[in-house]
Amino acid sequence: MINRNLKPHPLQGLFAPKSVAVIGASNDLAKPGGIIVKNLKEIKFSGQIFPVNPHATEIQGLKSYSSIADIPDELELVIFILPANTVHVIGEQIEKRMAKQGDLKYLICAAAGYAETKTPAGIKRQEYLVALTQKYNIRLLGPNCIGIIDNINKLDTTFVETLMDRNQKTGGNLSFISQSGAVAASLLMWGASAPTPLDFNKFISVGNMADLDFIDLLEYLEQDQDTKVIALYLEGYQKAGQLIKIMGRIAKKKPLIVLKVGKSSAGASAANSHTGSLAGEDVIYDNLFQQFGIIRVDSFEELMDTMQAFSRLPLPQNKQAVILTQAGGPGIIATDALSETKRLALAKLEPQTKAKLKEALLSFAIICEPEGFIDITASATVEHHITALKLLLADKNVDSIIFITVIPSFLPQQELAQALAEVLALAQQQKPIFSVIMAGKWVMDLRKSLGAKGYLTFETPERGVKALFNMTLYQSFLKTGGN
Amino acid sequence: MINRNLKPHPLQGLFAPKSVAVIGASNDLAKPGGIIVKNLKEIKFSGQIFPVNPHATEIQGLKSYSSIADIPDELELVIFILPANTVHVIGEQIEKRMAKQGDLKYLICAAAGYAETKTPAGIKRQEYLVALTQKYNIRLLGPNCIGIIDNINKLDTTFVETLMDRNQKTGGNLSFISQSGAVAASLLMWGASAPTPLDFNKFISVGNMADLDFIDLLEYLEQDQDTKVIALYLEGYQKAGQLIKIMGRIAKKKPLIVLKVGKSSAGASAANSHTGSLAGEDVIYDNLFQQFGIIRVDSFEELMDTMQAFSRLPLPQNKQAVILTQAGGPGIIATDALSETKRLALAKLEPQTKAKLKEALLSFAIICEPEGFIDITASATVEHHITALKLLLADKNVDSIIFITVIPSFLPQQELAQALAEVLALAQQQKPIFSVIMAGKWVMDLRKSLGAKGYLTFETPERGVKALFNMTLYQSFLKTGGN
Repeated sequence: MINRNLKPHPLQGLFAPKSVAVIGASNDLAKPGGIIVKNLKEIKFSGQIFPVNPHATEIQGLKSYSSIADIPDELELVIFILPANTVHVIGEQIEKRMAKQGDLKYLICAAAGYAETKTPAGIKRQEYLVALTQKYNIRLLGPNCIGIIDNINKLDTTFVETLMDRNQKTGGNLSFISQSGAVAASLLMWGASAPTPLDFNKFISVGNMADLDFIDLLEYLEQDQDTKVIALYLEGYQKAGQLIKIMGRIAKKKPLIVLKVGKSSAGASAANSHTGSLAGEDVIYDNLFQQFGIIRVDSFEELMDTMQAFSRLPLPQNKQAVILTQAGGPGIIATDALSETKRLALAKLEPQTKAKLKEALLSFAIICEPEGFIDITASATVEHHITALKLLLADKNVDSIIFITVIPSFLPQQELAQALAEVLALAQQQKPIFSVIMAGKWVMDLRKSLGAKGYLTFETPERGVKALFNMTLYQSFLKTGGN
Repeated sequence: MINRNLKPHPLQGLFAPKSVAVIGASNDLAKPGGIIVKNLKEIKFSGQIFPVNPHATEIQGLKSYSSIADIPDELELVIFILPANTVHVIGEQIEKRMAKQGDLKYLICAAAGYAETKTPAGIKRQEYLVALTQKYNIRLLGPNCIGIIDNINKLDTTFVETLMDRNQKTGGNLSFISQSGAVAASLLMWGASAPTPLDFNKFISVGNMADLDFIDLLEYLEQDQDTKVIALYLEGYQKAGQLIKIMGRIAKKKPLIVLKVGKSSAGASAANSHTGSLAGEDVIYDNLFQQFGIIRVDSFEELMDTMQAFSRLPLPQNKQAVILTQAGGPGIIATDALSETKRLALAKLEPQTKAKLKEALLSFAIICEPEGFIDITASATVEHHITALKLLLADKNVDSIIFITVIPSFLPQQELAQALAEVLALAQQQKPIFSVIMAGKWVMDLRKSLGAKGYLTFETPERGVKALFNMTLYQSFLKTGGN
């Protein structure tokens, strides 16, 4: 293994550049070039920010330059958001800069209007950018992408309203690569709106992949010590064989979640219109994903929940799950969902656990009817919730817990939140608890207070079970096929 | 057909009683007996409310009575929320009242601790209540239920925080019967929290069904002119054959959506623990649901989305759907989801529609690649969105529209909301538009402003497609097997 301390990965600088120039920077915060500068400032990028706009002397309080060639300091990364038809003007600036200072290492082209348009003009513009960057050994991300966010190195080059709470500590262990800017942006904003915000480590929109592509970025994330979980949104890719090989290699080390679209022939045709990718190969992808332990998800929600679960919960050791519910109906639904996975099983509790549950819970609580199903009933107190969770955590036959509660009006929510946080902290080193806390905004404060501490909650039992299923599948792959 | 004006249904008074007494009423708003009185007041129940509590002279500003026997005015409905072991005390009050005034017609027993406990004491208490109410021809709802809400007649007997905005006009066309109080309560609160609040007409928690059961209530809803869509949460029922027969009869007239749990053997066993229902009959249910055009849903989310769609959107005439998207990725996902239903098809547009779309949209918009898939692209203006929707509404080959947009920062949301509301109003008489407006709280104001006008939006394309699928299935049943 290479000692990364001695030899940093060549893409390291893209995520932690010393300085950034924004060509197309604006004082108008409704414009992409305004949002990029705002985002860089708000995330507290530690390097220098150089707005480039010949029509301004100052942009958002920063000195503005007419051209990147005029920037006196060292420049590592340029983000470019002007309309595509200005590409040659930008090209000239780059030529000048490289002739004089020769310091530029990375270019992010956020603008659209390149090869994705499938027009001769668009294709030509992209070819021009590629030739130019290759000439100077500059690595290019895009065009037609929304850029990158690195919550550890505090870099945000996107032009979307990320909705991230900049006062919250960010920088989880999850990194994400998206072939679609809209998917990336909507996941970012949807995730930021969740009671437990989705916390990316690195967030990468690859756009047309004219230079930097899935393989470059996956290999970067493979060696990135901050990234423990990787997710990918994939429409199609020319070098599918090579991609799957690398994904398979990574999946042995880090969970790799993929939302691959274009499953149906119509979907593949739509994908082809969109990113100009080859289609019709979904069955091959699917087989190889299964073989290589790559976790394929089928919907936005499953992607969201599976990313959150892998990112925030310990892997279950095996497939024995318990359903612990305060409400009959949702517990039955969870039981159906669990049974339907075929791979998960209801745990057979240790006799002493059953005895202690019987002692601790209400006389009419349902204990192990069926085996592995416990209904503490709507009359359960905070203590009943917590005692049951602790007993199940201690049971060596239990690998994971689906915990469901529909908080009645008489149950003190703040007290429950406090006590739950303690149990969830305890569980973090042992086994995953999939907490389903139901009833919309009635329980939102409770869910948010757990979320602020990094604990995950779900809106419905089915979604919790699905996430557990994906984690269990991966654990089983690691045991049998991962090495 | 019976003229309902001449002969009101015998259960009509349960939903529109002249007066209500609450035994167990409280000034403590955290207690169930406090919430019931509060809910009755907040919904602006037009009849008289009589709190019954021997330890108070006034409850929430209303005169309190020691016993229902002391209430001087006519009394039609009694709600009873005291602990189960007081059932005989209540019984005596009822006996007294019936001996003297003889006016009581309905009893809602919201308390738990009856036959659902499967204890001899619980079963005996329930038998006592049944015998007592039968003696006086009083209809009993429950025990172990959370009561009823009627948003037309303004009656709310529940002890849950309904979260309903009492200032909003309520009383949609959807009525719901639930066998689980927790499912009912969580749907109520989750629905009230949605950007387009779930708007029940009648909401009924049946509990143990000691007297009033699925059949009584379904037959009531069958003839209820305000109810156009019925949904049911079902765990199990002794008279399954009779239930399905009535459901089949209703489904020919009104869409009937059912979440039937206990599909798996473990789930059936859990259902058995919970409501004491017979299990193992799910396959029979499933076959009959299909045969009778009863719409079976498989998850809370699908129940929620399908109820909303049937309640708020016109039925598609046929299976030809169009995907109109502003974002490639989510459009592809919708296409995959649509293809996977097997029953929906992408519409073949009329030639003039294609020509007009080509003229109206951006040069790089994707029109019918594949057939029935239109990507107006992220550069689309409000006008592009609206024009495309109007052209598709006018195309006779299009039965339904999946419309997806991920609002970029430069698109004026208020303007879009305004214009969309106009198109959605137009669509209401023609064909359903399933509007998917993505990106969490970034678009929440837009979604809420449409929601306040009664228009439905979805968080993800998959959920919209699933709801469309269920509506299309029902339409196809009506055409082929409904009559």
